Amino acid sequence: MEFSVNQIAGMIGGTVEGDGERLVDNLGKIEEGKAKTISFLSNEKYESYIYKSDAAAIIVKKSFTPKNPIKPALIKVEDPYSAFTQLLEEYNKIMSYAKSGIESPAFIGEGSSVGENIYRGAFSYIGNNVKIGRNVKIYPQAHIGDNVEIGDNTIIFQGVKIYSDCKIGINCNIQAGTVIGSDGFGFAPQADGTYKTIPQLGNVILEDNVSIGANTTIDCATLGSTIIRKGAKIDNLVQIAHNVEIGENTVIASQTGISGSTKVGKNCVIAGQVGIVGHIEIADKTTVSAKSGVSKSVKQTGTILSGMVGFDHKQYLKASTLFKRLPELHQQVQQLEKIVLNLPSEKKN
Amino acid sequence: MEFSVNQIAGMIGGTVEGDGERLVDNLGKIEEGKAKTISFLSNEKYESYIYKSDAAAIIVKKSFTPKNPIKPALIKVEDPYSAFTQLLEEYNKIMSYAKSGIESPAFIGEGSSVGENIYRGAFSYIGNNVKIGRNVKIYPQAHIGDNVEIGDNTIIFQGVKIYSDCKIGINCNIQAGTVIGSDGFGFAPQADGTYKTIPQLGNVILEDNVSIGANTTIDCATLGSTIIRKGAKIDNLVQIAHNVEIGENTVIASQTGISGSTKVGKNCVIAGQVGIVGHIEIADKTTVSAKSGVSKSVKQTGTILSGMVGFDHKQYLKASTLFKRLPELHQQVQQLEKIVLNLPSEKKN
Amino acid sequence: MEFSVNQIAGMIGGTVEGDGERLVDNLGKIEEGKAKTISFLSNEKYESYIYKSDAAAIIVKKSFTPKNPIKPALIKVEDPYSAFTQLLEEYNKIMSYAKSGIESPAFIGEGSSVGENIYRGAFSYIGNNVKIGRNVKIYPQAHIGDNVEIGDNTIIFQGVKIYSDCKIGINCNIQAGTVIGSDGFGFAPQADGTYKTIPQLGNVILEDNVSIGANTTIDCATLGSTIIRKGAKIDNLVQIAHNVEIGENTVIASQTGISGSTKVGKNCVIAGQVGIVGHIEIADKTTVSAKSGVSKSVKQTGTILSGMVGFDHKQYLKASTLFKRLPELHQQVQQLEKIVLNLPSEKKN
Repeated sequence: MEFSVNQIAGMIGGTVEGDGERLVDNLGKIEEGKAKTISFLSNEKYESYIYKSDAAAIIVKKSFTPKNPIKPALIKVEDPYSAFTQLLEEYNKIMSYAKSGIESPAFIGEGSSVGENIYRGAFSYIGNNVKIGRNVKIYPQAHIGDNVEIGDNTIIFQGVKIYSDCKIGINCNIQAGTVIGSDGFGFAPQADGTYKTIPQLGNVILEDNVSIGANTTIDCATLGSTIIRKGAKIDNLVQIAHNVEIGENTVIASQTGISGSTKVGKNCVIAGQVGIVGHIEIADKTTVSAKSGVSKSVKQTGTILSGMVGFDHKQYLKASTLFKRLPELHQQVQQLEKIVLNLPSEKKN
Repeated sequence: MEFSVNQIAGMIGGTVEGDGERLVDNLGKIEEGKAKTISFLSNEKYESYIYKSDAAAIIVKKSFTPKNPIKPALIKVEDPYSAFTQLLEEYNKIMSYAKSGIESPAFIGEGSSVGENIYRGAFSYIGNNVKIGRNVKIYPQAHIGDNVEIGDNTIIFQGVKIYSDCKIGINCNIQAGTVIGSDGFGFAPQADGTYKTIPQLGNVILEDNVSIGANTTIDCATLGSTIIRKGAKIDNLVQIAHNVEIGENTVIASQTGISGSTKVGKNCVIAGQVGIVGHIEIADKTTVSAKSGVSKSVKQTGTILSGMVGFDHKQYLKASTLFKRLPELHQQVQQLEKIVLNLPSEKKN
Repeated sequence: MEFSVNQIAGMIGGTVEGDGERLVDNLGKIEEGKAKTISFLSNEKYESYIYKSDAAAIIVKKSFTPKNPIKPALIKVEDPYSAFTQLLEEYNKIMSYAKSGIESPAFIGEGSSVGENIYRGAFSYIGNNVKIGRNVKIYPQAHIGDNVEIGDNTIIFQGVKIYSDCKIGINCNIQAGTVIGSDGFGFAPQADGTYKTIPQLGNVILEDNVSIGANTTIDCATLGSTIIRKGAKIDNLVQIAHNVEIGENTVIASQTGISGSTKVGKNCVIAGQVGIVGHIEIADKTTVSAKSGVSKSVKQTGTILSGMVGFDHKQYLKASTLFKRLPELHQQVQQLEKIVLNLPSEKKN
């Protein structure tokens, strides 16, 4: 599919400088500058690429004026990055509309219903009494357990496994291989050293607009629900244990683990490889740095945490700076000791 | 399905106070107190909920006497939590008995045999010469490689992949997406900087009563077997490398990784996000705190470890308390230095 | 299949001492010493096993002479370990040649082509316009998205999911459950606290001879490609974010995570549970110890890093030794303080 630079400027509300009739057939990076592509210039440090580019057009800020002659047409907008993102989105929509219909064989159990314009890939499995909304895409080899509900426009990628009784909202996106509703890790120690399995009878609820990455695991609640509130974004290989609640619009990066019954507030940002213990509460707008361990509740909205035991961010930065200088500090102390211990004895107490 | 409070009291050997004819149709949390549910009171801090509850019945300790009027009937037992767990288990059994028979299409290779009362979900794959016991459930899209053996009553959830030649005991439970028997990570460096793959010809043995979480990976041995001893419980997203041995009744929480050829003893408790290096031995009943790194063998039964390099637990707690106070300590040293260095020079050595 | 000791000696270019007509039907560990197996002695500390072994033959160094009588025949070679590895490889080849042909049902879309001698397992899915080379094995329940290309001799194990547009080289090996090409974790924060998804339109390129472990995730690029260069070896449960580039022959152990747009050089060795932040470059031949966090670019080829913030290795070892001794250091400082503060006041400044 090809569009003219003028057509694209129309889609994103920009004004054209240069040849608006050139054709664009793909999106590209500014560093690559390939012919017939369109890219954007947002960060000034990439400006030099614009002078070498063979691209058909580049989206720039309204205020931008090239210092040297350039080949591409310019599309001027308020915010080039947003405009480009909008273009990507349009492109993506066109691409994803391609998948629809039912490939064969696909399994569907008794009492289940699906909305219109659904995609059910080959080898996808839908259990009994499942309710699936409109425009939902169930990719190949995905598994939807009994009694599950899935809202409109949600995309379930290949090989996702959703256990029985879970509820998935509208506009959710679950990447390949993710498991939702697996049994919580609950075992009661017995007198003889063995463990007895505590049955896990709850479910997982994903509210609307939730995105989950690939190969992530979200356990069902022992009783009640593990809940991911609307707009939360969870990355790959994240572990969410039983009875956890993740607040609205909270973002959790890859390989982080959140232990059982912990409640994370709204609009938090949890970086990668963080571990959060069970049975605590994290206040709204908390930020946790990569690799941190959080072992206590965070009560103050907007707290920034990092380090191994949930230090305050500034305190941690200071301490870890000194940690590097520990050998030096140690030497100082030894010198001091030598001096002081060699003072004439009447000076000491 | 509905039961009377009296019927339930009979199942768990309790005595009823209040209306034993009320009907129960679900289990619930004490905080929710929904009508027609039954829940339990074990921890005193939840006592206040009992006075607001609309539940049909609550399981309590024999010694419990309400301080205020209550609506639910009471079922009095020695240990409310255990009694409730028992109920959950009964409920779970009823639910899981529902799955049986063979859904279509399901694949089975040559020379394979399955016991009676098996469930084989749609798109499940059983290779050649596989032996599967009685009452086994193979959920949809699970993969059982050639020559695998699976004992009675074991449940293999959707999308689990078991490589050829592995052996799974009786009463095991493997949650969705887990991989058992993948190639160990073994590569021999060559003179030119490339690596040659070392073939991984061993297998994985899961003894009886082993539980494995979701999206966990257990590599096969290079030769011989990677072994998970009976009763071990392993959480989600755990990595068990080639030739590792995990002892009886050892519990390993989420996102922990155990490197090649390490042998973990019996009845250990390894918390989440722990890393254990290869080729070491961990004594029985060792406890390792979350996020710890263990780099040396643990010889003493019952050792408690935490921190980055396998510190003794108490030593680590002390050190990490001081780590927080490093800035303060640093200041102390600087002040001391100032004082001492300003002493009249004849006092110094 | 059985071979004589003489036949095996011929395969690996060794000379036989003892009975060369004995039959071998399996490979084994020297500690086990089972009849009709062959094993090897490379590390002297295992020598004692040779005197108790019932094995048919043992591969030893040319220089080895037994101190006591032994039962097995000896096959003498320059390097017993390499010779044994070679044998394993042969054995593995024989085993893996067994899988070929197309099991039913298997799905293939429009416009896709596969080379000769391919294996397509039951419930495997190949989308539209896919190009697959010769001798490729696609195990059951694997998913190959639209427009994917896969080179000759590559093995895609059960339940692997490859998103549309990815390119996989020749002689690659991808273990079960791994996801390649999942959407990068990109969300643009909006004024109201919600996030807008940034479409991820790029792909993943695996060059030749790349090995990927089980349940690993490799995200596609936002634009352009996430690239794994030839010969790289990546373990289980690793996270590779969007637009990352991993250099030739670099080895990455389990549960490590590499954030977006980071470029790792050639011949690096990254141990397990390491976290590397986004948008940095790691020089060739860098070694990173287990559990380290790397937050800055590494410019010097051959750097060794360990610890929480990318310390130099020696510096970190010193500091962490002192970290253990912090309580002691603290006491020293307190004693010093006591002494100095009790000096007669005219001595202080």
